[in-house]
Amino acid sequence: MAAQRTWCAAYAPLHRLAQVDSFASLIGIATAIGRRETTADAVTRGLLERIAARDPVVRAWSHLDTAGALAQAGARDAGTSAHSLHGVPVGVKDVFDTCDMPASYGSPIYAGYQPRSDAAVVALLRGMGGLVLGKTVTTEFATFTPNVTTNPHNPAHTPGGSSSGSAAAVAAGMVPVAFGTQTIGSVIRPAAYCGVVGYKPSFGLLPRTGVKAISECLDTVGCFTRSVADAAFFVGALARRPLAIGAEDHTPRIGLCLTAQWPHAQPETQALFAGLGARLSGAGADVRDHAMPALYDGINAAQDVIAAVEMAACLADEHRRFPHLMSERLRARLDEGAAIPAGDYDAAIALARQGREALAHALAEFDVLVVPSAMGEAPKGLGATGDPVFNRTWSLMHAPCVHVPITTGPNGLPLGVQVVGRIGDDAHTLVCAHWIERRLRETNLA
Amino acid sequence: MAAQRTWCAAYAPLHRLAQVDSFASLIGIATAIGRRETTADAVTRGLLERIAARDPVVRAWSHLDTAGALAQAGARDAGTSAHSLHGVPVGVKDVFDTCDMPASYGSPIYAGYQPRSDAAVVALLRGMGGLVLGKTVTTEFATFTPNVTTNPHNPAHTPGGSSSGSAAAVAAGMVPVAFGTQTIGSVIRPAAYCGVVGYKPSFGLLPRTGVKAISECLDTVGCFTRSVADAAFFVGALARRPLAIGAEDHTPRIGLCLTAQWPHAQPETQALFAGLGARLSGAGADVRDHAMPALYDGINAAQDVIAAVEMAACLADEHRRFPHLMSERLRARLDEGAAIPAGDYDAAIALARQGREALAHALAEFDVLVVPSAMGEAPKGLGATGDPVFNRTWSLMHAPCVHVPITTGPNGLPLGVQVVGRIGDDAHTLVCAHWIERRLRETNLA
Repeated sequence: MAAQRTWCAAYAPLHRLAQVDSFASLIGIATAIGRRETTADAVTRGLLERIAARDPVVRAWSHLDTAGALAQAGARDAGTSAHSLHGVPVGVKDVFDTCDMPASYGSPIYAGYQPRSDAAVVALLRGMGGLVLGKTVTTEFATFTPNVTTNPHNPAHTPGGSSSGSAAAVAAGMVPVAFGTQTIGSVIRPAAYCGVVGYKPSFGLLPRTGVKAISECLDTVGCFTRSVADAAFFVGALARRPLAIGAEDHTPRIGLCLTAQWPHAQPETQALFAGLGARLSGAGADVRDHAMPALYDGINAAQDVIAAVEMAACLADEHRRFPHLMSERLRARLDEGAAIPAGDYDAAIALARQGREALAHALAEFDVLVVPSAMGEAPKGLGATGDPVFNRTWSLMHAPCVHVPITTGPNGLPLGVQVVGRIGDDAHTLVCAHWIERRLRETNLA
Repeated sequence: MAAQRTWCAAYAPLHRLAQVDSFASLIGIATAIGRRETTADAVTRGLLERIAARDPVVRAWSHLDTAGALAQAGARDAGTSAHSLHGVPVGVKDVFDTCDMPASYGSPIYAGYQPRSDAAVVALLRGMGGLVLGKTVTTEFATFTPNVTTNPHNPAHTPGGSSSGSAAAVAAGMVPVAFGTQTIGSVIRPAAYCGVVGYKPSFGLLPRTGVKAISECLDTVGCFTRSVADAAFFVGALARRPLAIGAEDHTPRIGLCLTAQWPHAQPETQALFAGLGARLSGAGADVRDHAMPALYDGINAAQDVIAAVEMAACLADEHRRFPHLMSERLRARLDEGAAIPAGDYDAAIALARQGREALAHALAEFDVLVVPSAMGEAPKGLGATGDPVFNRTWSLMHAPCVHVPITTGPNGLPLGVQVVGRIGDDAHTLVCAHWIERRLRETNLA
């Protein structure tokens, strides 16, 4: 049972995870199951043990059915391993419908709701042999109102949101990969706060059908893993695209971009970015500072208008029938969104289009931009999930974004960078993010 | 009870509808209710009588709850009339979720399914005082496999699809307006076959949340009415946009465009288009023939690739768990879609983008294009819903499209034209369609 021993070592206590063996990775697990060096059952049991140990504090899971997970694993072990995700356990944010587990969407309005169908990506996952280990905690309808999850590195700090449970579960070693969604900053920010890789693909790369919608122009399905290679492998398999990181080692041309939101950067982010150009150059990258054109000053505000208008439309039923079961802040936001004139919305959409053209122009010179992922370390307190100020722009741009953990800040909490690539060129964006991860990552906190 | 008498006259037998009074229109009904010249209850009772008389043959409704509809109407009559759609009964295609009626999506997989929520547009409709009269018949998941509806003008002919019930119900005078969806040709084609106005707005104008998805890039919510003005009024109210047709009478610059699909036009369509330029010029329009650039030769094929790939993703759950409850043709289509290489999909998306640019270029010269809506009259037989060959291109272009009924063909069935406008400029497209309707429409078959 060498494989099983190695597996357990990979899920040693958090402070020892810097020494993990590749077997703890998603790719390692999938490969070992494929080679019959381990079983989906053994992997699942290992994860369930880890969950039992850590989840009373982290509270990443909104629904976990131990017997069901083991039954799925047993069925995979009894079947043939024809697909790359065969037997791999996955956490699913509780805004994705699954036919065999309840979906609350983080709201009491949906207490006890059992969807009839699987969301499209969940069905694709199962079709490739993957297992749904359980549902992970989301904020209220994937918006700002926090839920119960804590930061695995310090339970007094937020894990970020809205994909709080998915980011925390991956960070705490409870599952190798989990689905998230980003409309404003719900993949990149919790990835940054929890010290894991967060990958928000180009808009539309993974289907959203069966995911509770809050913005038709912005909602994007993404994932959390503990390495860029794992994220690329996972999304590549689901999207049937050649995203998996190969052996080639392209030296990236990087545009270091502080963005119009730079005044919001906290000292630890300022310090990280102060040394970043030299470190990337030292590692061999071609790095230059880059400033996006002036129209980018308005992109965050345009994103806010679009999100507000579309949220009011998408949640019109809940707003109309169950206002008393909504947080006051969400209700106020929906009221605001419903009152925004169509002309303001159209102007925001037009600015977004110009912004995408400007991004394409910038990324003719660079392979990727490196920008802040968040203001700083995960804020103290569980009453809010942090500010998405460094995420809004890239969500609206529909660009592929990867959070790469780099180091820790003054409170010992994770810090990293956001790698932004060409819209639709996720493969190259991931290769560049992997390059940066290999050269700069100091810590394997997750 | 003069108002009630007028109302009944509007719903006289089909052959007398050419003499209808404006009170039968959606705008007329809404105005009369608003002025308390009639009641939602009286209107609803009139429609229910009409349905009782006509639906045994037409079979437009998949769910009708007489008591529920009257209860909704009574509640509206008891309340204040604050919104423009107050008390207006609406038919809802059975791919839209409603919290109080079952949704089958035209498939036995969803037999007896009661959604938890209203689709976003249904919630917006109710918020504006509108009533859901019932659910209208759809083909299997809004694709090609026919359902039970017949053409109100001749029950031996198809009503078209996929929004078969909505088009037929409006044509048969059972409801003044009904929701439809178009992914390939599911609004414009049934509107053409049934002789009603079909309006497919610019992609994204109305929210799709809560509508059973089959293509994230293509699914568009639209409606059927008996006049362009009614369609503009309805969608304008729901979208909170100034679409309603005013008194201005702009003379349109029209590009008459036979399209790359012209070899599919049947003799009646050839005859209609042969005289169309002269009739439009005679009415005062500035008309010129227009040919789209050569890249448009590939747009229909690109639409087909995108629809197939996205259908396979959107219906992945049903395909995986219930293949035996799907039509053989749909199952084969999903297998095909799942096997199309990502590169082919990306090429189709890239061509679509070029096509949209070319359309914007063409519509700098013209206000609208006038193109065929369908190959010809509704084909005989109920085993198929007709060919969407004249619809695919404009669905992929995301352009606003309006079917305007003009005349009848050799079988006495409706014929008309499709008005295509600038993406995002629905208001002007509707004004031009209204202009054409006023000048050219010979018949009020619907």
